[in-house]
Amino acid sequence: MIDTLIHNGLVLTVDKDFKIIPNGAVAVRHGCIEKVWAPQADQALPAARRTIDAAGGIIMPGLINAHTHLPMSLFRGMADDMPLERWLHERIFPAEARFITPASVPLGASLSCAEMLLGGTTTCGDGYFLVDHFAGAVAQAGMRAVLGQGVIDFPAPGVPDPTLNVSAAQSFIERWQGRSALLQPSIFCHSPGTCSSRTLQSAKKAADEMGVVFQIHVAETRAEREQIEGAHGCSPIRYLDRLGILDSGTLLVHAVWVDTEDIAIIARSGARMVHCPESNMKLASGIAPIPDLLSAGITVGLGTDGCAGNNDLDLWGEMDMAAKLHKVHRLNPTVMDAATVVRMTTIEGARALGLDRMVGSLEIGKRADLIVLKNGEPHLTPLYHAASHLVYVVRANDVRHVMIDGQWVVRERQLLTIDLDALFIQVNALARRIEAG
Amino acid sequence: MIDTLIHNGLVLTVDKDFKIIPNGAVAVRHGCIEKVWAPQADQALPAARRTIDAAGGIIMPGLINAHTHLPMSLFRGMADDMPLERWLHERIFPAEARFITPASVPLGASLSCAEMLLGGTTTCGDGYFLVDHFAGAVAQAGMRAVLGQGVIDFPAPGVPDPTLNVSAAQSFIERWQGRSALLQPSIFCHSPGTCSSRTLQSAKKAADEMGVVFQIHVAETRAEREQIEGAHGCSPIRYLDRLGILDSGTLLVHAVWVDTEDIAIIARSGARMVHCPESNMKLASGIAPIPDLLSAGITVGLGTDGCAGNNDLDLWGEMDMAAKLHKVHRLNPTVMDAATVVRMTTIEGARALGLDRMVGSLEIGKRADLIVLKNGEPHLTPLYHAASHLVYVVRANDVRHVMIDGQWVVRERQLLTIDLDALFIQVNALARRIEAG
Repeated sequence: MIDTLIHNGLVLTVDKDFKIIPNGAVAVRHGCIEKVWAPQADQALPAARRTIDAAGGIIMPGLINAHTHLPMSLFRGMADDMPLERWLHERIFPAEARFITPASVPLGASLSCAEMLLGGTTTCGDGYFLVDHFAGAVAQAGMRAVLGQGVIDFPAPGVPDPTLNVSAAQSFIERWQGRSALLQPSIFCHSPGTCSSRTLQSAKKAADEMGVVFQIHVAETRAEREQIEGAHGCSPIRYLDRLGILDSGTLLVHAVWVDTEDIAIIARSGARMVHCPESNMKLASGIAPIPDLLSAGITVGLGTDGCAGNNDLDLWGEMDMAAKLHKVHRLNPTVMDAATVVRMTTIEGARALGLDRMVGSLEIGKRADLIVLKNGEPHLTPLYHAASHLVYVVRANDVRHVMIDGQWVVRERQLLTIDLDALFIQVNALARRIEAG
Repeated sequence: MIDTLIHNGLVLTVDKDFKIIPNGAVAVRHGCIEKVWAPQADQALPAARRTIDAAGGIIMPGLINAHTHLPMSLFRGMADDMPLERWLHERIFPAEARFITPASVPLGASLSCAEMLLGGTTTCGDGYFLVDHFAGAVAQAGMRAVLGQGVIDFPAPGVPDPTLNVSAAQSFIERWQGRSALLQPSIFCHSPGTCSSRTLQSAKKAADEMGVVFQIHVAETRAEREQIEGAHGCSPIRYLDRLGILDSGTLLVHAVWVDTEDIAIIARSGARMVHCPESNMKLASGIAPIPDLLSAGITVGLGTDGCAGNNDLDLWGEMDMAAKLHKVHRLNPTVMDAATVVRMTTIEGARALGLDRMVGSLEIGKRADLIVLKNGEPHLTPLYHAASHLVYVVRANDVRHVMIDGQWVVRERQLLTIDLDALFIQVNALARRIEAG
């Protein structure tokens, strides 16, 4: 017996062949995808506990936000359009020091999960502090996530003594490994500039020993590249390579200031990457050479980065931006075609997070993380090509239903897992305190 | 007696001082803005025929899309990610030749108006062919518009004999001048590369004599700049200047490939400009030097361009793109701050179209073109700064109510002026024919 049958949709599988099935159906059983096919018009649909009519809308894998900082939605739009150093040191760091607490982080994480789920994001890769205090909120939201406990060589929320940063991350991993089917703990080293070589190596060793993903911001800004070159005589990527940190368990975030040799090193190492175009644009960090990274065969996922910088967690806008930015930067309208961008935001994002056997496409045996889009709105009419539609016109509000691990978390745009009214009251009260300073 | 009173909102006036009124109200009478103020909590609201509670949402001027091609929504997503010349000659021009007809253009125009109205765009500047055949659809949608009849030295839809192109535009203007309070006819010369100097001068003369805006695409691509330099020995802007075409009645669209001298010439002439960042990005045309054009004091509005290229008419995405693109291009996060981008999409767009005395801000005596946004959605929470909110997080679907000329055209996201179901049936039937080729 099928648990959930979704039919009468345009099924975008994002399988190896990018197969698209008009008038298709997806069957879900025990949280898994049981069947993806085009039912014959003259045959009855199979029996199912629940049958959902997609009404001609697109049925596709849930989106994967491969890099964010969940609690930072509390600072959404608090400070913008400022020079990076002033923004960080005058606004973000002081706000984090005062307002990022065990009590506030679950509020920010719930708010971020609510936004992502309503926009069709079913998996996120996160790195922040006090993760122990908000992992429960993420699980309760029903979101699939890789949650990295932050490691930095400065006093940080929850880790006032930086000599304990790696062991704090290890303890977090021990507590959360295997605890929830949806959550994978991880280690998130802040950057090569803010962690010593000893910290980086010890954190990578811990990640490998515990079998979790090692995440790190790298080569985000020109200043960071110059700092590492000054201190270590080589580029940030070469520095990490020299420390033995680059392999298929490492996730490099940003990689804006990388040269041809850096790209070859990343490709050879098997390390994966996350591209965050809106964050890199808004903070004026630079333009990552994504077409070159893709040509080198590197796995590249897409991420929104945290809300203090971006200022939202909207992967539809991020896809649009990724497709258009590189076209104009290279003066070549054929780069970053729509299908490539859709793959980055689904199966490649899953691969970046080490979850590609589990999610990222609609294929038999994978966990059922899927979304159903609206149909019949002016901006969605007409529809000629599904991938183009997704990248260039679909918006977060066009997501109708969202399923994670076989469970509905959004139905008809109603979020089923979080009490939004109660959450808004708490978040707005905190925001008024943050505003008062 | 007030006709409509909207209260309990965050009023963004976009007046000279960018005044923002928390817990503000707007009164509308006889289609005009009668009062904009902060009612005292202890005083009764004035009597009004209809009173609308904005529920804490933003009340602001309707957005102004200063450049589009309305009927081209029929081709939304038909062809993407192709080299520009192949895209134009193999896909767009053949599709226009076959499917742009007196019967199809009102469908495309209605579809475009529906999308724009539901996204809070209350005025558009358009340039296309067969305008006579879709101006009625625009008027019926309740959209305010400057509609330019296309002039090009090739056979065009409705004007098979190009020697009659200027006189066809004159006839259109004669028929529509003063006919509708919402519509202003105009002339739209396609570009300096596709119109002879004689056509350009004669069209500009006609526009001046009839007192209408003269629109023209200019310096959109490097190829166009090189073509004009080869043919006339100077840049496209200098060429137009030499022909006597640049003055405050001229609206220059794109202006991507302009140099310092071009910018000085535009500034001196008083000509206005429209920036279409998403179109320029997706077609890989280049990045217009908008911060320099603004520094020179040039009026710059924002436009989506037509749907065949962009692929939507969403000014919220366009604002986000405009703010972020120039930051990363200049590696400077302070350029194109949020308030500047909001002005470009409201009062400056109105100025570009010659409508700034009538619309573009919430000020007493102006026509009541305004929108009310939603409040209380995860991605809209918290709200620290209104301009940042509008540029970086608000999406088209966050528009709740839309008023044009004192009349509601959208209430609670329901479009009141167009029968969408009937329209979709016709548009989808045509799209299947276009697809079959």
